[in-house]
Amino acid sequence: MAALAEANTAHAIAYGHDRWTRQLVPAMQERFGAPVHVLPVWGGTGANVVALACLVQASDAVVCADTAHIHVDEAGAPERTSGVKLLTLATEDGKLRPEQLRAHLAWLGDEHHPQPKVLSVSQSTELGSLYSLDELGALCDEAHGHGMLVHVDGARIANAVAALDCDLHAATIGVGVDVMSFGGTKNGMMYGEAVVFVRPELATRALHVRKQLAQLPSKARFISAQLLALLQDDLWLQLAHHANDMAALLAEQVVGIPGVDVARTPEVNSVFATLPRDAIERLQQWCYFYMWDENAAEVRWMTAWDTTVDDVEAFAAGVRAALAP
Amino acid sequence: MAALAEANTAHAIAYGHDRWTRQLVPAMQERFGAPVHVLPVWGGTGANVVALACLVQASDAVVCADTAHIHVDEAGAPERTSGVKLLTLATEDGKLRPEQLRAHLAWLGDEHHPQPKVLSVSQSTELGSLYSLDELGALCDEAHGHGMLVHVDGARIANAVAALDCDLHAATIGVGVDVMSFGGTKNGMMYGEAVVFVRPELATRALHVRKQLAQLPSKARFISAQLLALLQDDLWLQLAHHANDMAALLAEQVVGIPGVDVARTPEVNSVFATLPRDAIERLQQWCYFYMWDENAAEVRWMTAWDTTVDDVEAFAAGVRAALAP
Amino acid sequence: MAALAEANTAHAIAYGHDRWTRQLVPAMQERFGAPVHVLPVWGGTGANVVALACLVQASDAVVCADTAHIHVDEAGAPERTSGVKLLTLATEDGKLRPEQLRAHLAWLGDEHHPQPKVLSVSQSTELGSLYSLDELGALCDEAHGHGMLVHVDGARIANAVAALDCDLHAATIGVGVDVMSFGGTKNGMMYGEAVVFVRPELATRALHVRKQLAQLPSKARFISAQLLALLQDDLWLQLAHHANDMAALLAEQVVGIPGVDVARTPEVNSVFATLPRDAIERLQQWCYFYMWDENAAEVRWMTAWDTTVDDVEAFAAGVRAALAP
Amino acid sequence: MAALAEANTAHAIAYGHDRWTRQLVPAMQERFGAPVHVLPVWGGTGANVVALACLVQASDAVVCADTAHIHVDEAGAPERTSGVKLLTLATEDGKLRPEQLRAHLAWLGDEHHPQPKVLSVSQSTELGSLYSLDELGALCDEAHGHGMLVHVDGARIANAVAALDCDLHAATIGVGVDVMSFGGTKNGMMYGEAVVFVRPELATRALHVRKQLAQLPSKARFISAQLLALLQDDLWLQLAHHANDMAALLAEQVVGIPGVDVARTPEVNSVFATLPRDAIERLQQWCYFYMWDENAAEVRWMTAWDTTVDDVEAFAAGVRAALAP
Repeated sequence: MAALAEANTAHAIAYGHDRWTRQLVPAMQERFGAPVHVLPVWGGTGANVVALACLVQASDAVVCADTAHIHVDEAGAPERTSGVKLLTLATEDGKLRPEQLRAHLAWLGDEHHPQPKVLSVSQSTELGSLYSLDELGALCDEAHGHGMLVHVDGARIANAVAALDCDLHAATIGVGVDVMSFGGTKNGMMYGEAVVFVRPELATRALHVRKQLAQLPSKARFISAQLLALLQDDLWLQLAHHANDMAALLAEQVVGIPGVDVARTPEVNSVFATLPRDAIERLQQWCYFYMWDENAAEVRWMTAWDTTVDDVEAFAAGVRAALAP
Repeated sequence: MAALAEANTAHAIAYGHDRWTRQLVPAMQERFGAPVHVLPVWGGTGANVVALACLVQASDAVVCADTAHIHVDEAGAPERTSGVKLLTLATEDGKLRPEQLRAHLAWLGDEHHPQPKVLSVSQSTELGSLYSLDELGALCDEAHGHGMLVHVDGARIANAVAALDCDLHAATIGVGVDVMSFGGTKNGMMYGEAVVFVRPELATRALHVRKQLAQLPSKARFISAQLLALLQDDLWLQLAHHANDMAALLAEQVVGIPGVDVARTPEVNSVFATLPRDAIERLQQWCYFYMWDENAAEVRWMTAWDTTVDDVEAFAAGVRAALAP
Repeated sequence: MAALAEANTAHAIAYGHDRWTRQLVPAMQERFGAPVHVLPVWGGTGANVVALACLVQASDAVVCADTAHIHVDEAGAPERTSGVKLLTLATEDGKLRPEQLRAHLAWLGDEHHPQPKVLSVSQSTELGSLYSLDELGALCDEAHGHGMLVHVDGARIANAVAALDCDLHAATIGVGVDVMSFGGTKNGMMYGEAVVFVRPELATRALHVRKQLAQLPSKARFISAQLLALLQDDLWLQLAHHANDMAALLAEQVVGIPGVDVARTPEVNSVFATLPRDAIERLQQWCYFYMWDENAAEVRWMTAWDTTVDDVEAFAAGVRAALAP
Repeated sequence: MAALAEANTAHAIAYGHDRWTRQLVPAMQERFGAPVHVLPVWGGTGANVVALACLVQASDAVVCADTAHIHVDEAGAPERTSGVKLLTLATEDGKLRPEQLRAHLAWLGDEHHPQPKVLSVSQSTELGSLYSLDELGALCDEAHGHGMLVHVDGARIANAVAALDCDLHAATIGVGVDVMSFGGTKNGMMYGEAVVFVRPELATRALHVRKQLAQLPSKARFISAQLLALLQDDLWLQLAHHANDMAALLAEQVVGIPGVDVARTPEVNSVFATLPRDAIERLQQWCYFYMWDENAAEVRWMTAWDTTVDDVEAFAAGVRAALAP
């Protein structure tokens, strides 16, 4: 908010030619350790759609997990706006494996089948899992070996980089990522994300594609100012570390409660747990959260940059109460 | 060919206002036993794309099997031309079950998720299986109960109707189908299919959608003349019965050959078999056929309207020779 | 900003179920004097794209002036995201006349031609002109008489309503408008516009279409809070009246300067003038503005909600100096 | 028909791997005098759509005359299937001039405006006019000088090459054309056109794009056989010369009839004339033709490959009778 107020004080040239947007690029390039191309957008769907549309042409397809945000949570935006087909693969934990790509790679060159051009992975995933750098590197190698490009949906890249204890260079260039959607909204910003073209030569038409598919932010300084504030003193990583820690604390506090089954130790900022349906209902009336899998009675509890230890303890106490005999 | 030659002899008004196209409509309506709306198109992808585009609007999605032709074999045409998202479901045998729809039906009304609007099933399926009338009826009921419409990809509807020993009325109106792609090319035509709007009120914009997405056949009489010739004296059913019979004969002849494993008794005009890879290669050099599943060494042998008993016997002899020690 | 700070103070439920968004609807309905459906979006292109996509299906087209923002300034977004074709008409002053529609209306029902389904007009127009209520009513009547719907791009509807000295009911329902893009960004908001479905039955799929084509604002309260602040005590109209007055003042001050030719008395908040090219260049170096027509050496000077009398006088003095011998 | 009958006699491998399609490529390459890439398609809209989709990406636009077939007569297919925006220009005679492009070329690089990527011209045009080789060359130079590509809609390229008395090499490579839709249906074929990539490096994804947007002709031999028959002994040019001659004859015969105003000497195979409305109606009842401009009472009379001298004389006599006092 303070960053916004400052950006609001004076007239500025519209459409991204302001000083905040000009500062954002070197700030990002410093963190990536490379001359990446950076484009602020309104939201996560916009970042994904612009990134994909810059990579594909007619007849191209995108391979992703069947839990991917671009497949499940964007109301068909990639198909309709960038015209791509999504080819989804089932996974255990939201993470794709290189050998899974083979069935679709066999379609390459055959005019009857959709042509896989992009591999899109989420880091961290929608299921709260995390690719190790080696795992992500192996996926990128497999894709590149077949002429494909790699997009990372990094709506939660901050939580991933914090959990992997690496830097953005290692998390992207080091493993072979070509383009990334860099999340801000889920990490404390009022709104705003960025598309980061790790290989800047893929961004030649990016300005135009953003305008066409993602509503050019005419007062882009308000997004850039927030992103800059996040990057300053690695605030984005501090917030993500904190959110991850709060998830670990929550898991720790509820794992022993009879009736609660925490599937796995949290890798980032989410706790997946199963508990009796009536307890879920009582808890949701008190404090809303997301039912992850209706059939399995599995819920997802997310922690955030502003979750406090008190919040976690109060919530854990609530769970305990809801499950008391 | 004879039907074509006749249609070629005289000048005719272009774009479907010819006498063959005018005769096609009552001929189809007689077979469906209802005032269906009929639209000739060039090919199967065109029929499917026009049918779907008439049923959907922005944000709508189509549910289908992950083996569906619209998903696997149309190079992403439905997504790009009609803008729909496909939601695919895994099946054992190419056939969807009503309970499988539930996961996606739970998305209805939630703005984050694609909105299932159409259920598309193939009759018979790409795996050579067949929905019974009861099975198809149950699927239609489930879809209609949630405000969805039902499309049948009938590229092989002739083989299905022949195998079910019913008529087109029973196979469509009787079970609740809303729109059907009616196949011709796979049943002996040089080219040409039709979209049949079983519920004609869904066809109000069909003429325009065909022109936009499927290249209006300016000399449509050549398609209509072929379709009419197929319908005459139920030639289409005779051809389909024959093709089905030849598949049954082929299965019978190869089922006992050591090394050949015929998965199941053919329901329509295809035989799926697994055999040693070297035998497959030798056979393909002699007479090309389609490798269905590379990993499982499963092949698909199709019979057609013009397959003869001699063809089948010669082919079975070839298989026997290829597997001889 | 104050409205934003308040919306930032507390946790709120995401995705538009917050109290600001809930207040926005009755506030808008009161000003329209009708149960309109209101949907906040990020920007003007998003508002237009969502509005149009809710009105069209495959094969439909939109008729607009060839100066329309949707044609000139949205990088092809309507075509690519909603799949519509734009049919543009040349105008003298940015305003369409009913008789101009006839050429395209003659295409209705003919499968070869695009099918006009929506008439989209800008009020006020990109050329700074204004439809009188009678003029807009006559256009709506012509469109409705042929089964078309009417969309108004109201990026500058505030300036128009202020200049017409009417209210939103008269400006929309009174003349027959079906859907409006209601502008905020050009009237003082940091960001944010709204789609207002004057006929709410056209909005049945609007939530889903917004998510698909315009990136759902997950923290929609920040847009709603700004829109509410604008509506409060008719601030939006005060700001627009002021901007219009400043344009009138500017025109008055520059009209007599030798070498400046002001084409017409401003109707809203823009002044179009021609002046010598070297004077334009000198002025642009001092204070950037938009070259409207390169060939005619015509410039567009916009005034805004925050333009002061001092600003206008200083700018007019600059123009005088640039043209001094 | 004879060519078709021959192609129908034996089984052939589906999907374009037959001997007719293999012969078509060298036959075309010989006529173009270059290693062009050739792709048979069903119809003219398909040829145009595939050609354009191979040339554009998201945010690209196509510049064309406002009388172009792709704008007026394809029901919005280019926009919906390939996602491009059309930027149309008004012309006197259907022919674009290089200086007309400048207004849109000024948009290049500006993220707000659609980005012109392709110039599409019709040769001969929908108004029956013809670009000289110099005129087409100048247009290609202007487009290429701004990084654009040139597509020629050659639905009537045969009539143009016949009228220009040149060959396909001169008409395309000689002037700088990049891709051409090569017409067959309007020159005697039952159906079928071809996309000819004069610069074959633009065709890398053409097979897949055809499958996605234009319904792969599974029995492509029926199109290829017809195209081959057309090319044999330059039959296509003979037919076109004949059609052009018949238009010249028709113009000659009606030009002196009182009440008939022939606008200009025919350049290819069409005669545009204005005559009294009641005469038009009487004539249309007798022999249908196309009302070109309702307001101007202008009609278009087309001659074809199979129009005879007797046909022309009978028609001219009919016109004379319809206008008799």
